Amino acid sequence: MTHQIAILGASGYTGAELVRLIATHPSLQNAALSADRKAGLEMAEVFPHLRHLDLPTLVKIDEIDFAGIDLCFCALPHKTSQEVISKLPRDLRIIDLSADFRLRDPAAYKTWYGNDHSAVELQKEAVYGLTEFYRDDIRTARLVAGTGCNAATGQYALRPLIEAGVIDLDQIIIDLKAGVSGAGRSLKENLLHAELSEGSNAYAIGGTHRHLGEFDQEFSKIAGRDVHVQFTPHLVPMNRGILATVYVRGDASEIHATLAEAYSGEPFVVVLPMGQAPSTHETRGSNFVHIGVAQDRIAGRAIIFASLDNLTKGSSGQALQNANLMLNLEESEGLMLAPLFP
Amino acid sequence: MTHQIAILGASGYTGAELVRLIATHPSLQNAALSADRKAGLEMAEVFPHLRHLDLPTLVKIDEIDFAGIDLCFCALPHKTSQEVISKLPRDLRIIDLSADFRLRDPAAYKTWYGNDHSAVELQKEAVYGLTEFYRDDIRTARLVAGTGCNAATGQYALRPLIEAGVIDLDQIIIDLKAGVSGAGRSLKENLLHAELSEGSNAYAIGGTHRHLGEFDQEFSKIAGRDVHVQFTPHLVPMNRGILATVYVRGDASEIHATLAEAYSGEPFVVVLPMGQAPSTHETRGSNFVHIGVAQDRIAGRAIIFASLDNLTKGSSGQALQNANLMLNLEESEGLMLAPLFP
Amino acid sequence: MTHQIAILGASGYTGAELVRLIATHPSLQNAALSADRKAGLEMAEVFPHLRHLDLPTLVKIDEIDFAGIDLCFCALPHKTSQEVISKLPRDLRIIDLSADFRLRDPAAYKTWYGNDHSAVELQKEAVYGLTEFYRDDIRTARLVAGTGCNAATGQYALRPLIEAGVIDLDQIIIDLKAGVSGAGRSLKENLLHAELSEGSNAYAIGGTHRHLGEFDQEFSKIAGRDVHVQFTPHLVPMNRGILATVYVRGDASEIHATLAEAYSGEPFVVVLPMGQAPSTHETRGSNFVHIGVAQDRIAGRAIIFASLDNLTKGSSGQALQNANLMLNLEESEGLMLAPLFP
Amino acid sequence: MTHQIAILGASGYTGAELVRLIATHPSLQNAALSADRKAGLEMAEVFPHLRHLDLPTLVKIDEIDFAGIDLCFCALPHKTSQEVISKLPRDLRIIDLSADFRLRDPAAYKTWYGNDHSAVELQKEAVYGLTEFYRDDIRTARLVAGTGCNAATGQYALRPLIEAGVIDLDQIIIDLKAGVSGAGRSLKENLLHAELSEGSNAYAIGGTHRHLGEFDQEFSKIAGRDVHVQFTPHLVPMNRGILATVYVRGDASEIHATLAEAYSGEPFVVVLPMGQAPSTHETRGSNFVHIGVAQDRIAGRAIIFASLDNLTKGSSGQALQNANLMLNLEESEGLMLAPLFP
Repeated sequence: MTHQIAILGASGYTGAELVRLIATHPSLQNAALSADRKAGLEMAEVFPHLRHLDLPTLVKIDEIDFAGIDLCFCALPHKTSQEVISKLPRDLRIIDLSADFRLRDPAAYKTWYGNDHSAVELQKEAVYGLTEFYRDDIRTARLVAGTGCNAATGQYALRPLIEAGVIDLDQIIIDLKAGVSGAGRSLKENLLHAELSEGSNAYAIGGTHRHLGEFDQEFSKIAGRDVHVQFTPHLVPMNRGILATVYVRGDASEIHATLAEAYSGEPFVVVLPMGQAPSTHETRGSNFVHIGVAQDRIAGRAIIFASLDNLTKGSSGQALQNANLMLNLEESEGLMLAPLFP
Repeated sequence: MTHQIAILGASGYTGAELVRLIATHPSLQNAALSADRKAGLEMAEVFPHLRHLDLPTLVKIDEIDFAGIDLCFCALPHKTSQEVISKLPRDLRIIDLSADFRLRDPAAYKTWYGNDHSAVELQKEAVYGLTEFYRDDIRTARLVAGTGCNAATGQYALRPLIEAGVIDLDQIIIDLKAGVSGAGRSLKENLLHAELSEGSNAYAIGGTHRHLGEFDQEFSKIAGRDVHVQFTPHLVPMNRGILATVYVRGDASEIHATLAEAYSGEPFVVVLPMGQAPSTHETRGSNFVHIGVAQDRIAGRAIIFASLDNLTKGSSGQALQNANLMLNLEESEGLMLAPLFP
Repeated sequence: MTHQIAILGASGYTGAELVRLIATHPSLQNAALSADRKAGLEMAEVFPHLRHLDLPTLVKIDEIDFAGIDLCFCALPHKTSQEVISKLPRDLRIIDLSADFRLRDPAAYKTWYGNDHSAVELQKEAVYGLTEFYRDDIRTARLVAGTGCNAATGQYALRPLIEAGVIDLDQIIIDLKAGVSGAGRSLKENLLHAELSEGSNAYAIGGTHRHLGEFDQEFSKIAGRDVHVQFTPHLVPMNRGILATVYVRGDASEIHATLAEAYSGEPFVVVLPMGQAPSTHETRGSNFVHIGVAQDRIAGRAIIFASLDNLTKGSSGQALQNANLMLNLEESEGLMLAPLFP
Repeated sequence: MTHQIAILGASGYTGAELVRLIATHPSLQNAALSADRKAGLEMAEVFPHLRHLDLPTLVKIDEIDFAGIDLCFCALPHKTSQEVISKLPRDLRIIDLSADFRLRDPAAYKTWYGNDHSAVELQKEAVYGLTEFYRDDIRTARLVAGTGCNAATGQYALRPLIEAGVIDLDQIIIDLKAGVSGAGRSLKENLLHAELSEGSNAYAIGGTHRHLGEFDQEFSKIAGRDVHVQFTPHLVPMNRGILATVYVRGDASEIHATLAEAYSGEPFVVVLPMGQAPSTHETRGSNFVHIGVAQDRIAGRAIIFASLDNLTKGSSGQALQNANLMLNLEESEGLMLAPLFP
């Protein structure tokens, strides 16, 4: 049986990544694609790499007949997303890739995003979309909130450790290296090739990146107490990929064993042998997460590395994994594509 | 039914690309992998991006039991390839990705490769592996010679035009821009990131590139007379991708119509609307070829652009397309993966 | 004696490159910098790599007192440039880096740029700024028009050959590979890192690139008859650098000898030994041009390669070389910086 | 007066960078260049970007007449360097760019480099070459040991803070992002463009990088007690540049003030306004260090960023700055070249 899929906001990178993945998914079909300012264009005009596919023409959202849609991905900018989703049919299964439904607490949302949430009821209803940790809730959810791509990467490294109580909760530092597609297809000077290529810099320094809202919410929830991590993201001249380097206090062997155990049955999370470091090259274009652990030369300190592709496991691949659950399909269906290297 | 596949020379880029593609191919299985100097290692140690796959350990060629193998890909260096293939079972179906069996004429082989061919009988038997033009021969071949990646790109732009007689055969210039993975995983100074990144240069200048042997053989065969093109390859700082810019004399509309007609039924060859130029970004990681045609401002002159991924359509994807034919499978099976962008 | 320099349009890449070069020029001083929309900012806020310099604050053009200015560089967009220069003091020496004064013929200007020229008298007065070929005129000029960066590259390869009559004037093809900074600091989707990195494509295909106006004007003038070349530029993922591959009919040895002779006394133009190809890596950040010549395997055909840095020799370095002449300084003063490699 | 300079090991990146900088240095001359395996070649054959210079032919070390040499740079691999320097004239002023004379303690040297030091007397005599902190010693030194490039970057961020006692000495983490030229012109698989471009990974994890020997020596010396930092370097796809992100405990304002005060008279060290982060783009090709400080959202924690070009300020530029001191020249002579951007 083929499920009909709508993608709202198909003209951005996460929208195009959804189309790419759905194109070879055995049970899903790209049935409707919206793009407000590009309505009327063919997807091949907006993303010529999808030229070989027979895709619906881009339309405005209100041109979509949701009656025939089994599941809707919403890849719109945050704030727009909550407005649009509020008006969608109440029985439509939705996976939102924006930041709008990630935080449960309206006050936390306002703190990090600056505006009041306009759909508080939906905000309460939404399930946080980090599949491996919310699998059961996602299966029966109507509205799933895709996680931040940086937030996902840090959580893969840390959640089992906080859960197991094997690290000091007050001494966690996440130093993150991110590829540029995480910023979307937006016309900003610092995203130009001439400005970004051949160099690197930190951004959102001093603990101001919005994904900290997710870290705070999730880590505190697991720990049953407030947990506040340090988090410094860096822009690196690569199109896809996130590498999180996480500095913790704890026993490296115990940390490695905890992670290996936690992810032992997971199809997409690979824990490397002790002392090996992952590379973003090795997860590019795929739904895999690679995790490595090293003992520092200073006793009692360990470093955890987590690598994933921000557009796949960090957003659109994750969304599809959740869609599989919501549609009662095999969780890994259509997602076992190997990374592209070199 | 699953066919058992062996890959000789699995530790190079084309070998790894075969493994990647076979991993999600519904009817093929990676059954044996050889790598002479790396025998005993796991593939994940040589190519960590394949870490999630359950693959056979790398072995030496003579450790493989070919009795259980349905088809063998040979991704060895040229010259080694002819020696190895000479010793393989006579009834084994083989697709060779080296340069060893591309040229039919032993003298031409010696001209371009410098040594006498040591398996002249096999050389005569081999079928040239440019699928769209040798489909019927490939279907029943025992030994198929994968084409040069540059040679494939130029031929996609030119073969139908030479066949149709719509261009001047004495005025063809192929200016080609190639990504670095075409040079393989070889330790050469000019392939270092520090030497290649952020710059571009021509190489094998003056008509000395070996793929000219293939152009000469194929174009002359089609034309029924000697055809010698000019061909200048350039190294461009990208990992995958070839863009051929082909300067010809002829009517651009007729050229566009001829190409559109020739490729109208082809699953992997897309002819763009008149006046549009393809980009290597739009074929990366896929088995597609994109072709564009432009009328120059000077009457009677046209430019043809062809873009493909050297590791996929230019070698391993092409090989798999041929394998599908040889194994009586759907030609496009396992090969419809969309390009990876960005 | 130190000459006071003004730069109009200092917030673009060519403006910043002028500031960089003037900073270590022994006889010039950055005395005034304008940037309309960024007036009031410090240059270090717009270009932090110039942070170590003691520079004047960015102002609007009409805030500059031109009485104290010895020479003015105009790095504004074309069309704006002609309007601004019309209003500058009549005795001010000006080097314009825009396209506004490159073409002598108002009709040709309109053909290539689409609008009527609003300063036709200045257009007639301006001297074409390709230093090596207009040296004497530049020395006494009041208004010099910096050349197009692509136009400069092609002319270095071809001018002496057309002059000497050693190539067929009706068979010239320029295939050009250009870095992205040639497009300026402009917010366009195709200039984003995510869109440009790791791929290549042609643009302005079919003989529509505006620099053809310069080729036509200059080559026809030298030849004493109409000369129309084919010209196809390609975007390559590098920030700086242009490589022109020029296909001609003629004797390669004669071509090499002609170029070597023509440039024998030039401080910035290096002709490589016969059969060697230049690389953009080897001219980056410098005012040098490297030229190579190869004999094709087809008799009577040769390929000429020319490489330079579009922001230096292709615009701001060229402008400074001209300024040295106009100010009666040593032509190479401040310009002998070695290329930056790797 | 012009000083005659010899460079031993001129065929590596640091050697070429020395030649580049000396080429426009008013008081120094490239008088002798050695390269053991490339003796007999011209420098232009090994580094074509230096083609415009009139340089001595590459020779073997024992072909150099050191009588006419005022100062010798030794850019040889470590271990080779100590052997060669032992045999040079005792009165020759030498700046060594290898790791051989960075560590004062023979035991520490053995710990980090694995072999006994074969020139212990020289090891004791050598002055550590971090100019801003050893200026007086360098001025009168005969043998100066250039620092590790990563070691330099971390020390610029931390030395004044350790000296002033404003940070917790037991809680220092240096997360470093390094460009590839730091690994030299060496043929290693992980340095190939195809392996490095478009991705990032940590290396020498767990506190095993040799530059830790320098951190331990220098920080402990300043503090008057053992100081051991955590240090994790990452490879980033850029040719030049190092960005250190340093996590400390202390008051950010005090930290910023301490750094601003410490570097207030320094020509090459720029402390950015509080809360700004530097980028490696902004120091490329120059001898500048940019330092930024941010207050983390967690009270009592601060992040310091330091950026420099590993080949310039991190090695050859530093060496030249030291040479200026040793030759009684202006310290910044020949080194005020602005960074190259874009």
